[in-house]
Amino acid sequence: MPGLIVQKYGGSSVATTDLIRNVARRVARVHDRGTRIVGVVSAMGDTTDDLIAVAKRVTSDPPDRELALLLSTGEVVTAALLTMALRTEGYEATALTGFQAGIRTNPVHTKAQILDIEPSRIHRELDTGAIPIIAGYQGWTDDQDIAVLGRGGSDTTAVAIAIALEADRCEILKDVDGVFSADPRIVPNARKLDFISYEEILELARAGSQVLHPRAAELGETYGMPIVVRSSFHEAEGTTIVTGDKMPLEGRERVRAIAHDTDVARITIVGVPDRPGIAYGVFAPIEAAAISVDVIVQNVSHQNVTDISFTVARTDLTRTLRIVEPLAREMQAQDVTSSGTMAKVSIVGSGMVANPGYAARMFGALAESGCNIISITTSEIRITCLIDEAQVPVAVRALHDAFRLDEA
Amino acid sequence: MPGLIVQKYGGSSVATTDLIRNVARRVARVHDRGTRIVGVVSAMGDTTDDLIAVAKRVTSDPPDRELALLLSTGEVVTAALLTMALRTEGYEATALTGFQAGIRTNPVHTKAQILDIEPSRIHRELDTGAIPIIAGYQGWTDDQDIAVLGRGGSDTTAVAIAIALEADRCEILKDVDGVFSADPRIVPNARKLDFISYEEILELARAGSQVLHPRAAELGETYGMPIVVRSSFHEAEGTTIVTGDKMPLEGRERVRAIAHDTDVARITIVGVPDRPGIAYGVFAPIEAAAISVDVIVQNVSHQNVTDISFTVARTDLTRTLRIVEPLAREMQAQDVTSSGTMAKVSIVGSGMVANPGYAARMFGALAESGCNIISITTSEIRITCLIDEAQVPVAVRALHDAFRLDEA
Repeated sequence: MPGLIVQKYGGSSVATTDLIRNVARRVARVHDRGTRIVGVVSAMGDTTDDLIAVAKRVTSDPPDRELALLLSTGEVVTAALLTMALRTEGYEATALTGFQAGIRTNPVHTKAQILDIEPSRIHRELDTGAIPIIAGYQGWTDDQDIAVLGRGGSDTTAVAIAIALEADRCEILKDVDGVFSADPRIVPNARKLDFISYEEILELARAGSQVLHPRAAELGETYGMPIVVRSSFHEAEGTTIVTGDKMPLEGRERVRAIAHDTDVARITIVGVPDRPGIAYGVFAPIEAAAISVDVIVQNVSHQNVTDISFTVARTDLTRTLRIVEPLAREMQAQDVTSSGTMAKVSIVGSGMVANPGYAARMFGALAESGCNIISITTSEIRITCLIDEAQVPVAVRALHDAFRLDEA
Repeated sequence: MPGLIVQKYGGSSVATTDLIRNVARRVARVHDRGTRIVGVVSAMGDTTDDLIAVAKRVTSDPPDRELALLLSTGEVVTAALLTMALRTEGYEATALTGFQAGIRTNPVHTKAQILDIEPSRIHRELDTGAIPIIAGYQGWTDDQDIAVLGRGGSDTTAVAIAIALEADRCEILKDVDGVFSADPRIVPNARKLDFISYEEILELARAGSQVLHPRAAELGETYGMPIVVRSSFHEAEGTTIVTGDKMPLEGRERVRAIAHDTDVARITIVGVPDRPGIAYGVFAPIEAAAISVDVIVQNVSHQNVTDISFTVARTDLTRTLRIVEPLAREMQAQDVTSSGTMAKVSIVGSGMVANPGYAARMFGALAESGCNIISITTSEIRITCLIDEAQVPVAVRALHDAFRLDEA
């Protein structure tokens, strides 16, 4: 057994007080085996969504600084309760907020990035034999304000803390058994993968797989921190994320998994007079507002006008339109259209680098299943198609079959 | 209008997002009149009780440090939401946690006392024209842990901040119109008092009146901070708390109000061998556990054994018994009995100092209404009787009639 591990428990794993007591017993078992352990927790169940809903009852567009402060309470509640559960089982444990854990972030309040971790308090607790339980997803800015890391930020917190503590590994415990060849709720014969590369998990995460936040995977890759995704409900092995050269050979030569993402809204600026600097003029202000832009498509210009389409998270749609609409008027574009009911389906696999033919097979499978592809983007090891949300189940099942992902 | 006021909004006044938006408009009106204003807020409605209930589902005896951390989230949520509501009305506002507001406490995590306030951040916000909205009830220890001030701690926070800022006055906004001659829910013809002295409000608070926390009244008295208790639902004047010499003459010569308290549990150590130091031996460990002991009665010793009775808050009963029972065995006491269903009724009024006869009139009225008095304690301006909880309504109405408190 390694000397120090970080375990992160997600929202579904701590959704009720009974589940929190189960998590306490599981953390305690690691401690009993003589391994030092640090816990990182998410907010209970749907708490974050509930808090956002409360904020929206106060104002349609909550200010970031206060929204971050509001949301940060969710993880603090879980950390306090899990620590209580450990103490009641007879273990020394200490709940720490992001600030107490020394997590310093930049001042983008609701989508902050971790700048560094000053882990002296965590070390102090470990040195006394206590189990530190850290509220994930949050940190502290130089202005002494609370910032949150955005969705999936607890994964990032856990990996960052594992790196700061030089832990032996970071375990991400979830309500799923590991990384699957597709979402098992949509594809019943989806297969759990024993290994996956950082590169692949990163692409899956970017393509909408909820299994591990891309920033967490990136951090893990950069610092070589081994990450294990496994179930919080039983002790089965889960999926180990490794560097590509440590992958078993069988996994390297094919499409590994299908990802999908329904948190997609599309915006199209129609009929923009095509001048140099147009794309910069559109996307610089959006980036400045810390809105993540995903699939960008600019059609070939005809009659000197072009259309620019891109996607954002659905929660960012209103805010993005508020930025884009005046810009489009300035640029004398003809119109701005948008849709809040789009989705992405993607195939991911390191094998795609060396082998052609994947794209054609993907488009064929989607066409056969009756899916209309609205736009396409690719990376070295991923192909993503934008489709209508309603077609996601059909599309994912068709792709899983086409690439025979049920076969080991 | 004064230049700077602190307004504190209690849990019922911020129980829903609609109420929070009302509070925002009220705070904004003060700001519009050119008065600088600082808000201090409680947790929404029953949030604190709900959080305690969640903690109890995890462990029957939550550890203080983590319970404080858990409870502190309630006020942070309200501060964030009220600030959002102000911003959406077009006002600059900044939510501050107890730590950000510079509130330093001692390390008694769930019943902390404010040591001092370092108000530089509050000043910084005021100087930019923003309205600081502070999460009440909480502070920060030298160990960088979060502590909460115990029930009523938001009142104390508000008065302490008013003092630190040298505000012109501190307004406590509640779901009642001010201080009444008795609880209007029990006595329909109870009268609102326009003025009351610090001394009287202090005795009323100690006797169980929920209208202002005794520590808040004490702080106000010590530093001469004018406090106004008024409704959060309308702009009527409320009750102004003043020093005794500033009281209108009419109020000085009589019983002013009836208070009652049903959060009372009684413990009796039966048949203690009477030696010097017995009382110290019992109460020193209870005080060390930060449990407030109230009515203490030690009967005259006969045959060299005595009974010691005292009351504590009901939530402290289990914890107190756990301390008292081993002590009683060591002292060779015969038994420890307890009851969790006691109550106190009190008459309070500065006029009682100079005029005898109040006690007899009180005991007579209680006897006539069929109430059994279990024990009696008095201060200079208060007489308190311990009775059975079930008899509270009858007793309060009988006393209100006996002292003609419906008459102006």
